[in-house]
Amino acid sequence: MDLEKVFHMKGGRGETSYSENSSLQKKAADKVNHITVEAIKEMFLESKPMSLCIADLGCSSGPNSLSNIKELVNAIERESRKLFERAPEFRVYLNDLPTNDFNTIFQALPDLYRELKKGRNHGSPSIYIAGYPGTFYGRLFPDKCLHFIYSSNSLHWLSRVPPGIYNEQGDSTNRKSIYISENSPPKVAQAYFEQFKQDFSLFLQSRSDEVVVGGRMVLILLGRNGPNYVDRGTAFLWEILYRSLAILVSKGEVEEEKLDSYEVHFYAPSKEELEDEIRKEGSFKLDRFEMFEIEKDTGNSSTSYGRAVAMTVRSIQESMISHHFGEAILDNLFEEYGRLVDEEMAKEDIRSISFVLVLQKL
Amino acid sequence: MDLEKVFHMKGGRGETSYSENSSLQKKAADKVNHITVEAIKEMFLESKPMSLCIADLGCSSGPNSLSNIKELVNAIERESRKLFERAPEFRVYLNDLPTNDFNTIFQALPDLYRELKKGRNHGSPSIYIAGYPGTFYGRLFPDKCLHFIYSSNSLHWLSRVPPGIYNEQGDSTNRKSIYISENSPPKVAQAYFEQFKQDFSLFLQSRSDEVVVGGRMVLILLGRNGPNYVDRGTAFLWEILYRSLAILVSKGEVEEEKLDSYEVHFYAPSKEELEDEIRKEGSFKLDRFEMFEIEKDTGNSSTSYGRAVAMTVRSIQESMISHHFGEAILDNLFEEYGRLVDEEMAKEDIRSISFVLVLQKL
Repeated sequence: MDLEKVFHMKGGRGETSYSENSSLQKKAADKVNHITVEAIKEMFLESKPMSLCIADLGCSSGPNSLSNIKELVNAIERESRKLFERAPEFRVYLNDLPTNDFNTIFQALPDLYRELKKGRNHGSPSIYIAGYPGTFYGRLFPDKCLHFIYSSNSLHWLSRVPPGIYNEQGDSTNRKSIYISENSPPKVAQAYFEQFKQDFSLFLQSRSDEVVVGGRMVLILLGRNGPNYVDRGTAFLWEILYRSLAILVSKGEVEEEKLDSYEVHFYAPSKEELEDEIRKEGSFKLDRFEMFEIEKDTGNSSTSYGRAVAMTVRSIQESMISHHFGEAILDNLFEEYGRLVDEEMAKEDIRSISFVLVLQKL
Repeated sequence: MDLEKVFHMKGGRGETSYSENSSLQKKAADKVNHITVEAIKEMFLESKPMSLCIADLGCSSGPNSLSNIKELVNAIERESRKLFERAPEFRVYLNDLPTNDFNTIFQALPDLYRELKKGRNHGSPSIYIAGYPGTFYGRLFPDKCLHFIYSSNSLHWLSRVPPGIYNEQGDSTNRKSIYISENSPPKVAQAYFEQFKQDFSLFLQSRSDEVVVGGRMVLILLGRNGPNYVDRGTAFLWEILYRSLAILVSKGEVEEEKLDSYEVHFYAPSKEELEDEIRKEGSFKLDRFEMFEIEKDTGNSSTSYGRAVAMTVRSIQESMISHHFGEAILDNLFEEYGRLVDEEMAKEDIRSISFVLVLQKL
């Protein structure tokens, strides 16, 4: 399967869209917003580019993409004002896979430009926003053109399901789960880890060609706490998805074979695994590394936490699940999913761990 | 009405999409393809940029947008080979209004990249393609970043319906037509002309900031032959649209008032009008100006010429007509339209005139 052609967050603005179900991701980004702003300010004060180029890798299509950009632009304008200097021109590159719903982002641009104009006494900032579709596991931008890269909740997606999990007949050896779990044979975890190393080093190499010396990269992604491959915090979401699918198998709504051959292209690395790849690739210095958890709060009392998580996972996984199992199962599947999450949470408070990394181009 | 939010070619790939109904526009572009290629070659040989930046203004979403780009890249690669030099890196900026269907273009990109890779022995060219949504009547790109601008079948669209056609009560004074016609009071033509001057000079000023010295601009647009505002070749398409709408009024399918208040934001300038604005703005030199007609050939014998024209006009006007009259009238309207075109063509062979201009940044 060609991930570039299938995988995307659910587009548009409907009830099940990523746009309407990405508040958990926003919460993660907000929680470390001060780190992001600090990083762009440092870079700006060191190099004062006349034309500052920012890329958002894996921007998706919800309100999060443009609000990040607004925050960064505001921060740089504030710094310029403090220095009694004119703010730089901004070049903003929004990236995601070619199947991402760029139309919805683009349609929101005239309002963004209008807003940016309104708040300013001395003319609006010069901002040129472009969409750059493509995979970030490879080159996306011209040589040495970026000053700042931001990527939130994207890098835990691998470029593909690791080929190493399949046996010689092409069947998955990870039959009782869809990601690394207690039930997985050891070579499954190894295959995921290999794919992560390959992907993350290619990511670093590609960005290394694109970022100017002194440029910064802020990466926010799901991670795991320690060397054990099976980490409850992140594996939990996939375990629940496996169990929800298994319920549909037992009801005859999904074929067992279909479930056996489904795997996710996801990997939550440990701190050490990230550090190792950064060291090996060699063109970035790790300025900052922090680990954080997101509070369990749906922000909407009419919806259970389980349902909120189910809607989030649906908006992320719908394209893949429809492609593999067909669209018909979606509603039932995520109803089970929400119910199981609530059931588990009642027993135990499970939280995913996120990492934020600030890298500097050497 | 905010044109930026309403006006767009019909997206997607369906039967009535612009993508499926832009062969007439392709024909225009093909007919002057040698001029476009000549212009980019000249620019390239004079300045040999390491990173060559091309913008397509009003790219829309059909197959035309990417095939233009491929032709330009191929031409520069051929020139580089002749000189035994490495081809430059290409930066390609696709522009259209924010409501344009960029998703459909972006989804075609992986195949384009694959094709570009296939034909080459010595690695594929470095091409970075971005979408820049916004109106070209204003700034779109950072300062001095473009080497080559291409714009086909876009500049005859004004930024708005000229305000000068309305009387003090806000009613249109152009009641018996939707564009300049024999029935229009003289101030209507004047208002259209004023809007054209304002728009075209703003277009030139904006591009002047964005294009490097020696950069070229190839503009293809509908025009008229001589000073008379009512030019059968272009006014004809609008006259037929007016008559089709009037038929629906007579059948009670459209309210007369609705028709009275409908006007198009279109203007076909004369050669002299274009030259005057270029001279006045002063930052571009007119290298070349040619006038051409497109042959009457649908390329598809099962469809009448009238129907082909009707489908083309529909894919261009659908967003505006639906906004004003509602979607329900579309099928009937364009059936009448196709019939009227065939009827008129049987009496007289009417051809639209197109212009191609090559401008050089001074």
